[in-house]
Amino acid sequence: MTATDAYGPADLIISGCAALLHDDQGRIGFAEDRAVVVRAGAITAVTDSAAAAALPAAERIDAAGQLAMPGLINCHTHSPMVALRGIAEDLPVEQWFNDWIWPIESNLTARDVRLGARLACAEMIRAGVTCFADHYFAMDEVAAVVTECGLRANLGAAYFSSQGEEGRARSLDFALRHRGTADGRISTCLAPHAPYTVDDTDLAATARLAREHGLPVHIHAAENREQTESSLARTGRTPIETLDRAGLFDDGIELLIAHGTGIVERDLEVLRRARARIAVASAPKGYLKFAWDTTPVRALAELGIPVGLATDGAASNNTLDVWESMALTALVQKQTEGDPAWLTARQALHHATVQSARAVGLGDSAGALAPGRRADLILVDLSGPHTQPVHDLAATLVHSARSADVTTTIVDGRVLMRDRRLLTLDVPQTVAELGERLPELTRRAHGRRIQDYRA
Amino acid sequence: MTATDAYGPADLIISGCAALLHDDQGRIGFAEDRAVVVRAGAITAVTDSAAAAALPAAERIDAAGQLAMPGLINCHTHSPMVALRGIAEDLPVEQWFNDWIWPIESNLTARDVRLGARLACAEMIRAGVTCFADHYFAMDEVAAVVTECGLRANLGAAYFSSQGEEGRARSLDFALRHRGTADGRISTCLAPHAPYTVDDTDLAATARLAREHGLPVHIHAAENREQTESSLARTGRTPIETLDRAGLFDDGIELLIAHGTGIVERDLEVLRRARARIAVASAPKGYLKFAWDTTPVRALAELGIPVGLATDGAASNNTLDVWESMALTALVQKQTEGDPAWLTARQALHHATVQSARAVGLGDSAGALAPGRRADLILVDLSGPHTQPVHDLAATLVHSARSADVTTTIVDGRVLMRDRRLLTLDVPQTVAELGERLPELTRRAHGRRIQDYRA
Repeated sequence: MTATDAYGPADLIISGCAALLHDDQGRIGFAEDRAVVVRAGAITAVTDSAAAAALPAAERIDAAGQLAMPGLINCHTHSPMVALRGIAEDLPVEQWFNDWIWPIESNLTARDVRLGARLACAEMIRAGVTCFADHYFAMDEVAAVVTECGLRANLGAAYFSSQGEEGRARSLDFALRHRGTADGRISTCLAPHAPYTVDDTDLAATARLAREHGLPVHIHAAENREQTESSLARTGRTPIETLDRAGLFDDGIELLIAHGTGIVERDLEVLRRARARIAVASAPKGYLKFAWDTTPVRALAELGIPVGLATDGAASNNTLDVWESMALTALVQKQTEGDPAWLTARQALHHATVQSARAVGLGDSAGALAPGRRADLILVDLSGPHTQPVHDLAATLVHSARSADVTTTIVDGRVLMRDRRLLTLDVPQTVAELGERLPELTRRAHGRRIQDYRA
Repeated sequence: MTATDAYGPADLIISGCAALLHDDQGRIGFAEDRAVVVRAGAITAVTDSAAAAALPAAERIDAAGQLAMPGLINCHTHSPMVALRGIAEDLPVEQWFNDWIWPIESNLTARDVRLGARLACAEMIRAGVTCFADHYFAMDEVAAVVTECGLRANLGAAYFSSQGEEGRARSLDFALRHRGTADGRISTCLAPHAPYTVDDTDLAATARLAREHGLPVHIHAAENREQTESSLARTGRTPIETLDRAGLFDDGIELLIAHGTGIVERDLEVLRRARARIAVASAPKGYLKFAWDTTPVRALAELGIPVGLATDGAASNNTLDVWESMALTALVQKQTEGDPAWLTARQALHHATVQSARAVGLGDSAGALAPGRRADLILVDLSGPHTQPVHDLAATLVHSARSADVTTTIVDGRVLMRDRRLLTLDVPQTVAELGERLPELTRRAHGRRIQDYRA
């Protein structure tokens, strides 16, 4: 009995391409002239093109001259903030939050979130992102956009202690209602904002709820060195120690920490002892813009903590371009560690694939082109003059190619972009509708803000 | 008498676009619905689209929804090195030079240089670069490619003292033969390699020749901190002091220094006293890759020294993408200076336009959209989801847009790329011919190298 008999025709076969594959240790390799066979949203085989030519398939993509690789994963963003892209530039983080972002976010409506998420998803699909972890407000709207546009996402409704118990309750309610929706493409989490806006009692309650409901937790922590110093001065504990003390490092918890550029030496032992499954999301562009340190990727790697790639929101990062985060991670880490041999192109691709998948809880189902994984993949055109000749595919991908070279984005076996044309979202319509909302959304004369930033 | 009567029909009118313009202090501004009128390769007017509609023109480009800005200038590259893009990665500079680049360059033929330059020019035109400063070998070949492809360039034939007087003589001969060729698009310079490969006698001779023939000088110097320390240990002088002592900072000389990341405090007073017209070319991506410091842009700005943007060769930088250099300059400078308010998006655009034009000796003829300047300009599509909405055009250009958003590249009024299609170069043909040469070009078993790198 052949594979065809066992399964019937494939839904989709992508053939003729080079492919980025992982060996059984998760190491990056490349193979030529591969075919990816997709059935019911999953990869059922990665084989050679000649073998695949004999298989019947409902749909075929001839990807000759392109490279297939796992779709990129944006491990920490606030997708609707694309509405504020470029509105508050060249500012220290205090002014950025207190004078711009938090006053503007006090105007935010569900409709703004819907439109922002649509534009963000369009940008991400065009950048080869197949999954994103979103931490924001009015998340029902984001879930609706994920459902309509076909992306995969891990979604959490943000809360502050200033909202009382209601914020936490809403975050839990959101997580329970949406978990497993959009044909399983949506996973959810609890989303306390940060140790400086969520108090110890609420963090401890979050840890209990996470264990009780089997929900991951996604939180900003140790965003910069100043926050760590301020936390030490105020409480005698670093933000990392505060998370540990609240029970968020306990066994059975899955914790995604955004940024961590303020992780200091004494935190490393705390992280080493943690029983929780911890990952860190790094968004290096914003750290450069705010003149912060960067995520201590090398120290985290030595602890076996995965570091996923992220963009943060476009209000600080200006794009949701995970490819850019990948390249910047390689560049900035070399410079920060004073070591040109550190964070090689292959390491950068490991962060972009295996480690990012683990960070968003998809370590077994995404992040690699392998049988049994979801069919979340992209095709990259390497024929442009800026990517030729190719001496080493890893270097070409990380340091020469860019997100605009992604031609095709596929999630769960469904083509969301083909030849750079979006198939599930209407950008001009979204931009026009969002444009009408901007005067009201960006009004700051009222003097309100949703929080005060004090590191 | 109207403009039409005075000049006859325009050769080209680009209309309906936003435009990046400079005020009489050279500061960046933007205007909507502009038209750029081109006659005989020069801009004769920047006016409103309605006024331009009444003017007769041989050719019109409707640029509605796009932004016109001066073409980017690559102030320091070795264009044929695209052939080595990605061949030697994640290495310290000593190994990079001694084990890879200089052994391979000992195989270099004129044909390799021709093919590499063609691929490089294709990449640059697609990245919105209209002019480049090239410092390499077999430069007759590069000049031929510039002539055929329509770009503007400042070209210098590199030499080492190890070549004896012949190297310097060939550099002078090249500069004199090619100056003003390609309908004036080629300017030339003397191109001593660096103070660590060209001795004091040859540097002094270069200074004399530069003054005698009115030729600029383009040289690598103080490429990194280690070179400065090594020079101090060997000679008691920094590389900058060595240039000064050789007469290269004297009145009447125009000097372009590549990199300068090893410029130290004591150099600043030397630079302040210099009578030469000095500029520095900064290529920040390679500095990150080699884990070097970066160019001290703030200190140079305080001295009034223009810092032009550059990519260096693709063997270290992996692209010739000046847009990427612009964005990285903004990001890295903020982080290096610990100041998010430093190197604003407008400053980055000032480096990319006015300062880069001055760096390559085109301060009066390029770098701005203004009557009397050469018609070297690009159109940028800002309708993509990653560049919407636009709150501030400067931020959109520097931090959200990228070279792939350039749709149209024009030099001397001639369209070299339209709607991302190259009109003067054949990429697949060039890649195929270059591919045939690569096995021979990249051979290292012979054990030869053109130089030894010792900082």
